Amino acid sequence: MSPQLDSYFQKVDALSDSFIERLRQAVAIPSVSSEAARRPDVVRMGHFLADELTKLGASVELRPLGKQHGTDLDLPPVVLARYGNDKNKRTILVYGHYDVQPAEKSDGWDTEPFELTIKEDGRMCGRGSTDDKGPVLGWLNAIEAHQAAGIDFPVNLLMCFEGMEEYGSDGLDDLVNAEGKKFFADADAVCISDNYWLGTEKPCLTYGLRGCNYYSIEVWGPGADLHSGVFGGTAQEPMTDLVRIMASLVDTNGKILIPGIAEQVAPVTAEEEGLYDDIAFTMDTLHDSLGSKTTIFEDKKRTLMARWRFPSLSLHGIEGAFSAPGAKTVIPAKVIGKFSIRTVPDMDIDKTNEVVCRYVEEVHKKLGSKNSLKVYPQHCGKWWVASPNHWNFSAAAKATERVWGVKPDFTREGGSIPITLTFEQATGKNVLLLPMGSSTDGAHSINEKLDKRNYIEGIKLLGAYLHYVAEEPMN
Amino acid sequence: MSPQLDSYFQKVDALSDSFIERLRQAVAIPSVSSEAARRPDVVRMGHFLADELTKLGASVELRPLGKQHGTDLDLPPVVLARYGNDKNKRTILVYGHYDVQPAEKSDGWDTEPFELTIKEDGRMCGRGSTDDKGPVLGWLNAIEAHQAAGIDFPVNLLMCFEGMEEYGSDGLDDLVNAEGKKFFADADAVCISDNYWLGTEKPCLTYGLRGCNYYSIEVWGPGADLHSGVFGGTAQEPMTDLVRIMASLVDTNGKILIPGIAEQVAPVTAEEEGLYDDIAFTMDTLHDSLGSKTTIFEDKKRTLMARWRFPSLSLHGIEGAFSAPGAKTVIPAKVIGKFSIRTVPDMDIDKTNEVVCRYVEEVHKKLGSKNSLKVYPQHCGKWWVASPNHWNFSAAAKATERVWGVKPDFTREGGSIPITLTFEQATGKNVLLLPMGSSTDGAHSINEKLDKRNYIEGIKLLGAYLHYVAEEPMN
Repeated sequence: MSPQLDSYFQKVDALSDSFIERLRQAVAIPSVSSEAARRPDVVRMGHFLADELTKLGASVELRPLGKQHGTDLDLPPVVLARYGNDKNKRTILVYGHYDVQPAEKSDGWDTEPFELTIKEDGRMCGRGSTDDKGPVLGWLNAIEAHQAAGIDFPVNLLMCFEGMEEYGSDGLDDLVNAEGKKFFADADAVCISDNYWLGTEKPCLTYGLRGCNYYSIEVWGPGADLHSGVFGGTAQEPMTDLVRIMASLVDTNGKILIPGIAEQVAPVTAEEEGLYDDIAFTMDTLHDSLGSKTTIFEDKKRTLMARWRFPSLSLHGIEGAFSAPGAKTVIPAKVIGKFSIRTVPDMDIDKTNEVVCRYVEEVHKKLGSKNSLKVYPQHCGKWWVASPNHWNFSAAAKATERVWGVKPDFTREGGSIPITLTFEQATGKNVLLLPMGSSTDGAHSINEKLDKRNYIEGIKLLGAYLHYVAEEPMN
Repeated sequence: MSPQLDSYFQKVDALSDSFIERLRQAVAIPSVSSEAARRPDVVRMGHFLADELTKLGASVELRPLGKQHGTDLDLPPVVLARYGNDKNKRTILVYGHYDVQPAEKSDGWDTEPFELTIKEDGRMCGRGSTDDKGPVLGWLNAIEAHQAAGIDFPVNLLMCFEGMEEYGSDGLDDLVNAEGKKFFADADAVCISDNYWLGTEKPCLTYGLRGCNYYSIEVWGPGADLHSGVFGGTAQEPMTDLVRIMASLVDTNGKILIPGIAEQVAPVTAEEEGLYDDIAFTMDTLHDSLGSKTTIFEDKKRTLMARWRFPSLSLHGIEGAFSAPGAKTVIPAKVIGKFSIRTVPDMDIDKTNEVVCRYVEEVHKKLGSKNSLKVYPQHCGKWWVASPNHWNFSAAAKATERVWGVKPDFTREGGSIPITLTFEQATGKNVLLLPMGSSTDGAHSINEKLDKRNYIEGIKLLGAYLHYVAEEPMN
């Protein structure tokens, strides 16, 4: 059965100016979570959302999270809201965040970052437009358009909007876990709109994310930094050891050289083999976003598999060595190499840590160095894969086809959104990632934008999704 | 013939309090050359020296050097002075510097760095005490003691004291080269007192320094820094390439893996083999200064050879990668590795650059990477070795035995003092390094000191050296 959505869609179009005005008001609040001086603006943004939701008839709570870790600074509140409480309707829990990345005009922005500027081609430029104020307001706009159209809202909507996502979601995990069987208890499914289409033309639904294990390798020997003239040739240098160890982890073509990693990766099934051909993604897209042609693979399928379903290892840098421009003839006394492994099904965090640490220790041992070594994980976040066959996804697919006139791609992502897994585990329900923006939005860059089309059609999509998910047969 | 020096020595002892007072006045002037705000103090120190020299009867010139490279700041003047102009005497050119390293009590000093503090055990603590105000004042004190003792000064003394040594000797090379056949024209030999004994008990004469070729390896590919979640596994990472290249340069035991370096090193002669056994140096000394036992060799001879007469390669760091504490999941777009090779006879700078760059390019080629590479020398300074059999050295050896009652060690150093080679080339004369302080003086560290014994006996040594060098038969 196909929901009657035409009058809702018409109302979204009719209200589009006021929805853009709402986004303009939100972008004007510089809710930068990483800067202590901006904390009052982050709080103000939380109150703005709470006020708007209250006006729409939602019951709203501004939940304090205590002090920011290691500081005396109050965390911004989490906006917890409920719209509708009908036992005969499904309940959908949605998550978003109202804080943004830092931005200064002097970073190179063409326009004032905290003034929403609409270009002739429909780009709506401003910090937070696509990440994540546009999608968050999308839910509010969907409620308003239903009211204006006089259509019954199809579900009970639970909302969880945080203000620290761009700075580590301090305190949120505890709240989500604590509320899993309380505030979120009647959620039937979860929907998060905080990621992006794979390209610029075709919508997608995202059902998987890689995890990330981040490691430090410390090597030390001398009591203090040394002069390379005096000690070069007589002392075993920690930097030499560390570089040789780091060089043993991965090769130029991304092959992880640590035994016991590849063995944990789920084999590619025949069904999966067929998934990649139809995905709207070309090597040109990758070259554009990479800014070069220095790719490992030359074809789409192996590239997408490498991003989505195989682990990767990146060397990020070295702490304690000379890192400034110019020349300094120092032998660093202690250096700390940083690298991370993006993890995938069925890799186990503990097993991975074990093989990584053992391998690094073995390589160090083979060097025959008297320098000391310590290797350890700094932080680990698990991969996440949902079933794209769940009714939550099939409802979203139908809504996408209804709004965009095309079946969505089912995608995974190479990065991590740790809160996804937290919601899945805390509620025990299926989680869907339903993006509004496109791959060129530049979420963390200068000139961040959300296309007007993606915003307005996105509001239709969120509303349509709620109708389809209300009716979709359970599977 | 042994000079009659007893009355000179007695006068040095008699005047020791006033010599220490002179050092106290000099240390009290914070002539830190690297800090623009301290430039007036550096200039004041130059004038202090000029005034003292004028009072002693020297003819003095404060030679301006123009602007500091890349700034509008006047360089401190070089103090050029002459004491004596007797055609029947030899002329000795001495060099020193009157600027100092930065120092703040808050760096961890036990005493105020710019107040000379004399401890019960004879340590005279203060910035510049040993590097290089003590030795520079040594020449002035030697003049004064001769006058007070009524002894004819044995040589004509040319003095060149600069104020930028701790910040790259900006402008000095040009001056020395220009004055080689002018102000310095009648110099018969050169003596520099700006290095240290190998240990704490036995004086030494230094006849060799290693050179230094400093290299950058740039690797770049992507248009901008990347997120390792999105691009990990799909892009060839510049950091991976750079680390693998750097790992191919040297091993844990300091072996340089670049072909064409070892081949250039002068073979160890039978004569040289015997030089190391008697040197006052123990592995304990090395462990103390290293702050650990992470040495490459376990014996004195191979350690000294590694420091003095074999090349070494040190990896200093990487510019452009993540170098802060904590975790950041960045794939750097461009990274610049820094390393240097300490060079020795008979290595050629150009030949070394050629084999290094070719090797790095070959290793990069073997990686099969699409990332771009550039390798180049940042700066190169040649090694220096003088003949320790020259009459300049034999005179200094006799003076040392007379003052300290022991034959000095003939040493080389692992580091570079580029001005040494400049003086040799500009004057065409033998250069002697005649240290006053000992290995524990902590020239660039907190609690820099000069032992009272080294200062007072050092003044005797400088004066005695001038007597012996005045009489030493030419060889």
